[in-house]
Amino acid sequence: MPRIVQKYGGTSVGDVERIKKVAERIKAARDEGHQIVVVLSARAGVTNELIARAKGLCADPSDRELDQLLAIGEQESIALMAMALHGIGVPAISYTGAQAGIFTDRAHTKAKLKMVNPKPILKDLKEDRVVIVAGFQGIDEEGQITTLGRGGSDLTAVALAAAIKADICEIYTDVDGVYTADPRVVKNARKLPEISYDEMLELASSGSKVMQSRSVEFAKKYGVVFEVRSSFNHNPGTIVKEEVEYMEQVVVRGVAVDKDQAKIIVSNIPDKPGSAARVFRCLADANVVVDMIVQNVGRHGVANLTFTVPQADTARAVKTLEPVLAGNGGGEVAVHGKIAKLSVVGVGMKTHSGVAATLFQALAGAGINIDLISTSEIKISVVVALDRADEAARVAHDAFGLDKV
Amino acid sequence: MPRIVQKYGGTSVGDVERIKKVAERIKAARDEGHQIVVVLSARAGVTNELIARAKGLCADPSDRELDQLLAIGEQESIALMAMALHGIGVPAISYTGAQAGIFTDRAHTKAKLKMVNPKPILKDLKEDRVVIVAGFQGIDEEGQITTLGRGGSDLTAVALAAAIKADICEIYTDVDGVYTADPRVVKNARKLPEISYDEMLELASSGSKVMQSRSVEFAKKYGVVFEVRSSFNHNPGTIVKEEVEYMEQVVVRGVAVDKDQAKIIVSNIPDKPGSAARVFRCLADANVVVDMIVQNVGRHGVANLTFTVPQADTARAVKTLEPVLAGNGGGEVAVHGKIAKLSVVGVGMKTHSGVAATLFQALAGAGINIDLISTSEIKISVVVALDRADEAARVAHDAFGLDKV
Repeated sequence: MPRIVQKYGGTSVGDVERIKKVAERIKAARDEGHQIVVVLSARAGVTNELIARAKGLCADPSDRELDQLLAIGEQESIALMAMALHGIGVPAISYTGAQAGIFTDRAHTKAKLKMVNPKPILKDLKEDRVVIVAGFQGIDEEGQITTLGRGGSDLTAVALAAAIKADICEIYTDVDGVYTADPRVVKNARKLPEISYDEMLELASSGSKVMQSRSVEFAKKYGVVFEVRSSFNHNPGTIVKEEVEYMEQVVVRGVAVDKDQAKIIVSNIPDKPGSAARVFRCLADANVVVDMIVQNVGRHGVANLTFTVPQADTARAVKTLEPVLAGNGGGEVAVHGKIAKLSVVGVGMKTHSGVAATLFQALAGAGINIDLISTSEIKISVVVALDRADEAARVAHDAFGLDKV
Repeated sequence: MPRIVQKYGGTSVGDVERIKKVAERIKAARDEGHQIVVVLSARAGVTNELIARAKGLCADPSDRELDQLLAIGEQESIALMAMALHGIGVPAISYTGAQAGIFTDRAHTKAKLKMVNPKPILKDLKEDRVVIVAGFQGIDEEGQITTLGRGGSDLTAVALAAAIKADICEIYTDVDGVYTADPRVVKNARKLPEISYDEMLELASSGSKVMQSRSVEFAKKYGVVFEVRSSFNHNPGTIVKEEVEYMEQVVVRGVAVDKDQAKIIVSNIPDKPGSAARVFRCLADANVVVDMIVQNVGRHGVANLTFTVPQADTARAVKTLEPVLAGNGGGEVAVHGKIAKLSVVGVGMKTHSGVAATLFQALAGAGINIDLISTSEIKISVVVALDRADEAARVAHDAFGLDKV
């Protein structure tokens, strides 16, 4: 019997009416002859409410107690969903992370999965029950409740799909798939029927935040085929898997724009071994995620480093860098906030030359200046001015003919 | 080091401000050199909110899923209280029922305690932490979450006190102790410094709903000394224990009125063996709790039975009785709703005669008619008209001199 894991996010279980709609959808899949495991998030807003209450009691709540508190959000969702299914005659049972055998390490609020015990769920599936599992949460070997951090419910779904050898893992969200570009910006953007894990990863890290990279990486590692689709309609979504048909022909699969970046220029640092290392070591120690890096070897024994960081990390990056530069032969830090990163992504590009040329030519034709460039095997990213970013996306989308199948 | 279990009800953790006040109280007790275990209920209103949401999804939610859902109420309370304690510099750790090792049978929504494992809590106490435990909930041997039913948090507190051999269990509630009578009715009612388990049990079952009988019985069985006191002030409360000083001298300790009773008269049933048994068997099968019972053997081979039941059970009792009577030689059922039960309670009365005489004479002197009478070793109860009940309580309170120490 085909086995499906379905994951629904917080807006899909936001109120009693939404829960009922999801229950009907689960019933329909079961009536088609599938075994169903459902992973749920806390209803939208609950987590923020609980955190606000916590902060009212303690400026810096302990991670263990935060997990103990936040885990109730999903526990509410699963019990209510089980009841909704009972209400329409579907046998169902809810499981907390602990009950579902989702074991993690002890890193509260950002725990890593260690093991998923499929036995309790497989037993229920065999007995014809729908199994509803709390996403985002697990248990450590001492019985402490842990949570998996951002995107944790997606990870729970993918991990369960791997553990019970599901045929597919359906990720229900508020978009109905992965597009060749953001449809709000590029009007003729097209939904991709399929995409590879690597492309999904590059698109995610380039600003198409359908899913956290972490869950995609996990799916890739364990070969879990998953589908990103909407809980608001019945359109087919985008299937993410290792092998994608027609892969050879398709050079570029999508265009992504990330407007949440700032450019930092560190100039006039001593051009000697270890200078760049010192800069990035201190940023790493301050948990600043650095994305694109370009080094220009300058004249007169000094060098310039340019890199991008998330907007939110800009102040911290500067505050961290200044004393380090002062203590190591000098240098200045400047921030340019009004930039965006445009990326074109496609597994096909590694066997095709000319992608970069096509992109640069198209942008030049539109009079859009390119600031930084970086490339990976399946991605080319360029930094452009923030106010030209949307236009750049449209130009690139057209240049690679992404509106056509 | 003296060891205390403190239990706070739902109004005491109703909002952030109240939680902070309780945290201060816990800190004060710890600063006095006590080891503290705290048992908390869900904040007032949460349970009803959750049940309402459940009923919106399923007319008759399953008991397992109800437990899964309701358990989040206490889990929220304990995590927030641990944070509040951290916020004022008190080391603390929160435990769900499962984490605290509170094992029950599998009877969801009305589980019975099977075993409490004191080890995890004792370890934390030794390491100088305040331990915050979710009341009302436990876990069965399969890892299912169970709840203990009405008064469950008091039971958790008393059971933990027994398991960790606490010196005292403090039950914080919205009244500041057990009184000789309801102070809203009897103006000169006096708070009792001490009372025995048996007296507490009789007062509880006679309408003084400070605590469910179940927790008092458990405390009596395991010799747990507990104190009923207010979380809104620092007045000493009432200590409940086996031996009470001055017990010999005190004949009557308190007066209780229960206005939630109705009287049912079953008349003209065949006066032959088994008639009464049949009546009470069918009521028991319908889960109707029968309180006082009086049988008058009538003339002409028929008998009358009179008994009291909780108001809420009246309709069910009548509906259950009618077909049984019809199938067993006939009989009529009549209901009198406007009654109240007045009880005088005292361990001393078993060695003193004249308590009944004093009570009846006092009521007669006030022109209050006595309808039914029943007695136990430490209690005399009478049924009077509902509109005379408060006056009867005052008369009885005066007759036994309960306003004086």
